[in-house]
Amino acid sequence: MKKMINSVESLLEESLNGFAKAHNDIVNFNHQPHYIHRKQSSKPNKVALISGGGSGHEPLHTGLVGTGMLDAACPGQIFTSPTPDQMMAAAESVESGGGVLFIVKNYAGDVMNFEIASEMMICEHATVLIDDDVSLPKDHSTGRRGVAGTLIVEKILGAAAEAGANLAECKTLGDRVNRVTASMGVALTSCTVPALGKPTFDIGDNEIEMGVGIHGERGREPMTLTNASEIVAHLATAIDEELKPQAGQQVLLHINGFGATPLMELYLMYELASEYWQEKGVEVVRSLVGNYTTSLDMAGASITLTLMDDELLELWDAPVHTANLRWGC
Amino acid sequence: MKKMINSVESLLEESLNGFAKAHNDIVNFNHQPHYIHRKQSSKPNKVALISGGGSGHEPLHTGLVGTGMLDAACPGQIFTSPTPDQMMAAAESVESGGGVLFIVKNYAGDVMNFEIASEMMICEHATVLIDDDVSLPKDHSTGRRGVAGTLIVEKILGAAAEAGANLAECKTLGDRVNRVTASMGVALTSCTVPALGKPTFDIGDNEIEMGVGIHGERGREPMTLTNASEIVAHLATAIDEELKPQAGQQVLLHINGFGATPLMELYLMYELASEYWQEKGVEVVRSLVGNYTTSLDMAGASITLTLMDDELLELWDAPVHTANLRWGC
Repeated sequence: MKKMINSVESLLEESLNGFAKAHNDIVNFNHQPHYIHRKQSSKPNKVALISGGGSGHEPLHTGLVGTGMLDAACPGQIFTSPTPDQMMAAAESVESGGGVLFIVKNYAGDVMNFEIASEMMICEHATVLIDDDVSLPKDHSTGRRGVAGTLIVEKILGAAAEAGANLAECKTLGDRVNRVTASMGVALTSCTVPALGKPTFDIGDNEIEMGVGIHGERGREPMTLTNASEIVAHLATAIDEELKPQAGQQVLLHINGFGATPLMELYLMYELASEYWQEKGVEVVRSLVGNYTTSLDMAGASITLTLMDDELLELWDAPVHTANLRWGC
Repeated sequence: MKKMINSVESLLEESLNGFAKAHNDIVNFNHQPHYIHRKQSSKPNKVALISGGGSGHEPLHTGLVGTGMLDAACPGQIFTSPTPDQMMAAAESVESGGGVLFIVKNYAGDVMNFEIASEMMICEHATVLIDDDVSLPKDHSTGRRGVAGTLIVEKILGAAAEAGANLAECKTLGDRVNRVTASMGVALTSCTVPALGKPTFDIGDNEIEMGVGIHGERGREPMTLTNASEIVAHLATAIDEELKPQAGQQVLLHINGFGATPLMELYLMYELASEYWQEKGVEVVRSLVGNYTTSLDMAGASITLTLMDDELLELWDAPVHTANLRWGC
């Protein structure tokens, strides 16, 4: 394993220290327990948006804390759920009278720990569960996983909360965005979790892992390495069959790198995916291309599509000022 | 070789098509010859800033075209200089009466081709040569290489040109920023150029390449893999010996990933590097952490330091609106 670290034990703390220092105009880092929160106070009665999950997916979620997006993020150890005390402390810190909305990716550990935190919280609260990964069937035992669509939900909810939507409205909106968002990814290599010191899964030189999860979970099927057009068609078809966008439908197209895939290849995937939907008369009106929901050093990428309408477009376009997503302010 | 591509021949064109489509609010893509240019017209008599170089370093330079930064970028094939016809066509397209300033990384091919273009140009023009890589001695035969400091020069010059600085002022400023900027990088793995199909260099499981160039050129020395603190101290010391910042000096600290190194590790490096200079009383007042001057899928990172003053800080903070660097607008 070749990593730029001092020790497996100190990696997260040292990294969060650096993150908070590099962005000390936007965030604060609370050390005991760990959470990152907005430096700028929220408006009174704004719904406080809190997300979290295992580390190793950066910039998700810490890099998305700031005006117009999250109020706080709770990072667990790498690929390990944060604990209820982190969520409760973050909630107490950022709640300003409008209640707390947890945005939770659908993984057993995350779901359980956010539930425990919810049960112990006194303030008004709700949870939006993200399950945008269409690589698993809808009736999969633990449900579908939450992947790169999480960022889309967080951005849109961030704008709504900033504009004064109340907790019930945010909960309804978050569930709605999750329903009109679908993702699927492919891995060319495994990632290597520092604490394990070896790749999470074996993959042949001529193999790709179709439908991989953001922790390197095995996906739908290993496939023979093929060209980008075929890979993109495979991913896009699964998403298209789920969302069934009609001709004339406006969509947001997000190409997300898992960490080690060059931007050149991500933009090539964007070109192929946008052509795929263009041929169906679907209008790609907004785009996001880059490494946002990563899986440490995994090579590969995912495609996310969200069906947009005027309300969602306005919320997507609203100003956002975080470490890793920033426009309009 | 595992890449998300259709063919080595079509990769660049397909990728640029996707880039231009994803950012069609900011840039246009001219196909014959290849260059990316700003969609929004420049102010009359604004100095036109043009950079370029081999592809594979994205977002440098195409992702840095837009208001407050470059007017055009000329991408060559991967790790291959663009040709004079690209530079001349780009110059003709974006020149608006204020002349053209070429920003050129110091590599033989780039330097030669930008020189040929300069000789054939009719409009007023000048060139700023970037040679911020301190891994080579100053008297190295072809001089020092231009690496991640290029972005710093481009951002600062972009703001100056936008604010009305003339060609001579931009040239003087660019040379000055280059002189107060120093970088050095380390590779943990090689990159793989698609046309070659195999890693550029061999590196042992317990080796790192200290002072590597952004094309995977061998650096100062291969070293045994060690912890992040020692790696950062090695890089920072070389930079510190070059720039000799005094206590109280304000600096911009840029940690640049080469492509495959997770953000967690880059922020950890930021933490260690900022501590290094903090202990010397040097004040890190601005930061940039992320993958900006990449080397395809190489794992590793570089540190860049720029000595700042009030003028440079104001120019750094000025609004910028490009595909991959954006603030204040």
